[in-house]
Amino acid sequence: MTLFNFMFDDQSKSDTPASELRFDPVSQNWVVVATGRAKKPEQFIRAEKKTSEAVEEDACLFCDLSTQLPPKLLRGGSENWKIAVVPNKYPAFNCCFPLNEQEIGPYKKMNGLGFHEVVITRDHQKHIGQFTVAEVRDLVDVYQERYLDLMSEKFINYIAIFHNHGYEAGASIGHPHSQIIATPVIDSGLSDSLEGSEKYFHQHGRCVHCDMIAEDLKDGRRIIFENDKFVALCPFASKVAFEMRIYPKEHSAFFERLKDDEKTQFAEALSAAMKMLDAGLKNPPYNFFIHTAPCNGKEYEHYHWHWECFPKTSVWAGFELSTGIEISVIEPEKAAEFLKSKKGASLEQ
Amino acid sequence: MTLFNFMFDDQSKSDTPASELRFDPVSQNWVVVATGRAKKPEQFIRAEKKTSEAVEEDACLFCDLSTQLPPKLLRGGSENWKIAVVPNKYPAFNCCFPLNEQEIGPYKKMNGLGFHEVVITRDHQKHIGQFTVAEVRDLVDVYQERYLDLMSEKFINYIAIFHNHGYEAGASIGHPHSQIIATPVIDSGLSDSLEGSEKYFHQHGRCVHCDMIAEDLKDGRRIIFENDKFVALCPFASKVAFEMRIYPKEHSAFFERLKDDEKTQFAEALSAAMKMLDAGLKNPPYNFFIHTAPCNGKEYEHYHWHWECFPKTSVWAGFELSTGIEISVIEPEKAAEFLKSKKGASLEQ
Repeated sequence: MTLFNFMFDDQSKSDTPASELRFDPVSQNWVVVATGRAKKPEQFIRAEKKTSEAVEEDACLFCDLSTQLPPKLLRGGSENWKIAVVPNKYPAFNCCFPLNEQEIGPYKKMNGLGFHEVVITRDHQKHIGQFTVAEVRDLVDVYQERYLDLMSEKFINYIAIFHNHGYEAGASIGHPHSQIIATPVIDSGLSDSLEGSEKYFHQHGRCVHCDMIAEDLKDGRRIIFENDKFVALCPFASKVAFEMRIYPKEHSAFFERLKDDEKTQFAEALSAAMKMLDAGLKNPPYNFFIHTAPCNGKEYEHYHWHWECFPKTSVWAGFELSTGIEISVIEPEKAAEFLKSKKGASLEQ
Repeated sequence: MTLFNFMFDDQSKSDTPASELRFDPVSQNWVVVATGRAKKPEQFIRAEKKTSEAVEEDACLFCDLSTQLPPKLLRGGSENWKIAVVPNKYPAFNCCFPLNEQEIGPYKKMNGLGFHEVVITRDHQKHIGQFTVAEVRDLVDVYQERYLDLMSEKFINYIAIFHNHGYEAGASIGHPHSQIIATPVIDSGLSDSLEGSEKYFHQHGRCVHCDMIAEDLKDGRRIIFENDKFVALCPFASKVAFEMRIYPKEHSAFFERLKDDEKTQFAEALSAAMKMLDAGLKNPPYNFFIHTAPCNGKEYEHYHWHWECFPKTSVWAGFELSTGIEISVIEPEKAAEFLKSKKGASLEQ
C-alpha cells in the first residue's frame, strides 16, 4: 500500500497534466502514465538493437549545459562546474498544481505532481567506477544537498535517487548521470521494504537490517568491503547475480542525515564497490539506488537506509516478471569472493 | 508473504541440492539460487550483444527431441508430435527429496524442490502470433493437462505457466517454447495479487477483477477483443506499454477448471491478442504468464484467474527496478486503439 498525506485541496481543475498516476486496486500500487512524454504507437515498433556504444552522441547534450534547463545546482561554479543538477527536460513527474485525484469505478488516478532532476558529472568518459574517492564524495554531497532542498517542499513525501549505467540498464544518454525523483507518493518497492521491516521489528523488537548485517559480519563470506561506519556486501537473498548493498553500521533510517565523516566513509565504500564491479565484470551495465525512509515527517525507527546495486548480467524473462524473482545462477558468497579478488586490481586504477 | 504447507519432515539429509530457495526477511520473499546450473564468475563478463536472430541455432535442440530428456507428453504421437513436453535439462526446480529447510540467523533457506518443464511446439519458425486458433487451443489443452498432472503431487502448491519470446525477453533458445514451474512455495508476484484481491473482497464484498472488467466493458476504450466468455484488454494501470490481459468473464479462481467450450473461447482471445501484437509491433519480444490461484486445496473465492502479457518495448532501469513501476510512455487507451486497428491485418494472416 502506498499512502501519503496531501496538503492541497483537489477541487480546482488543472490543465492537462504532463503525467498521471494510476492506482491498481489489486497490487495496491501506483503506476505512472507519463502522457507528457507520450510516443506514437509506431515508435514502439522494434528497431535495430542499439549497443552501449551507440549511446555515445556526436554532440552530447550533457556536455553542453546550454542545451539544458537552468541548473538548480552547479558544484565548482558556472565555468568550472564538476557536477550540475538540471531539471529533466522530459520529466516523469513535474510540479503542476493543484493535485487532481479522481475515482473511476474501482480505479483511481491523479496527476504526476513532483520533481524530476538529472545529476550530471562533467567528464563524458569517466563513469563512477573510475572516480576517485573524493569525486564520489562530491557526488554524495550533491545527492544530500538536493535531497534536503526537495524535502523542504511540504507535498513531497518520498525522494528516489538512482543511477543507470549502460544502454542495457536503461541509460538512454551515454554521459554519466544520476536521477532524482521527488513525489507525494511512496513507491511500492520501498513500501514493501518498509512493511517487511516493521513486521520484523514488531516480532523481534530489533531492526531486521541490523540483524542481517550482524549475521553477514559473523559469517564473513558475503562482505566485500568494510570501514568503521559502513559495510558493503552481496546480500544473502540476492535477487540478481552480483547484487551489492552498502549499509551504515549504525542504525539510521535517513540517508539525508549523514554527517560529514560518514559521507566520506560512505564514499569510500561506494567507490570500492564500483571499482570491484568494474574490474570484475569489465564495466557492466548496472542500476543503483538508495532506499531511505520517506520524508513525510514521521520517524521510521524500524527502517535502516541503504544503497543497492543491480548489475545487468541477464535479461529478465517471464518467470522473473511474474514473480519478481530472478533465477540467480551464482551464489552470493561466490560473487563476493570474485569481487573481493578484484580489490587489488581496482585500487591500481 | 509466501507461505505453504509441507508434507515431509526435514530431519534427514539430502544430497547437495541442485538449487535452493532463500528467504529475504525484509521483502518476505523467497529467492532461487540455482547452484545446479551455476556459472563461473568469468562467464558473466559482458559479451557482444546477441540479436534475436543470433538465437537461431544451426542444429536446434528443440527440433531434435532425441537431445532432450524423455518426454512427459507428446501430442500427436511420437512420430507426428505437434507439441512435446520435456523436463528442463537445466531446471530451476527439480524433485530432490527430502525438503531441507534451515534457519541461519535472521535468514532461512531451503532446497529447490519442484518441477520445471518445457512445452515445445514443433514448427521452429512459427511463433504463437502465427498460430491458428486450433493450434492455440492445442497449446491451452497441453497447459491444462500438465497443470492437472503436476498438481496431483501433494507437495506442489503453486504452478507457473509462462512463455518468453525473443532474446530481449529472455528466451535463450529461438525455437518457440513455454515453461511450467511447479513448486511448494507461492511466489511473491502472485501473493501480492492474492492479498490485494482478498483485501478488496473484504472491503467491498465483491471480486476486484469482476469490478475492473465491468468498468472496462462500460468504458470500452481499453477492450481489444471480446467473445461470450472472455475479454482481452489493455489494463487501466498498465505497468508496461501495450500490456495485455485476458479474463474469463465468469468469476473463477482456477485456470485448470476450464471446460471444453471455455478453452476454445480462451484460445480465440489469446490468438486474437497475439495476432494484434504481432501485426502492431512487428513481432516484438514479449513475456506472457497465467496468474491462477494456488493448487493447495484451498478455495480462493476472492481471486479471478487471468492471462497477462508484457511486450518488451523498453529496457528497465533504476526507477523501475527500485519501484517495480515502469514509466509507461503510452496510455493504455491509445495502446488498445492501436492494437484494435490491426485486427483486420492480423486476421488476414
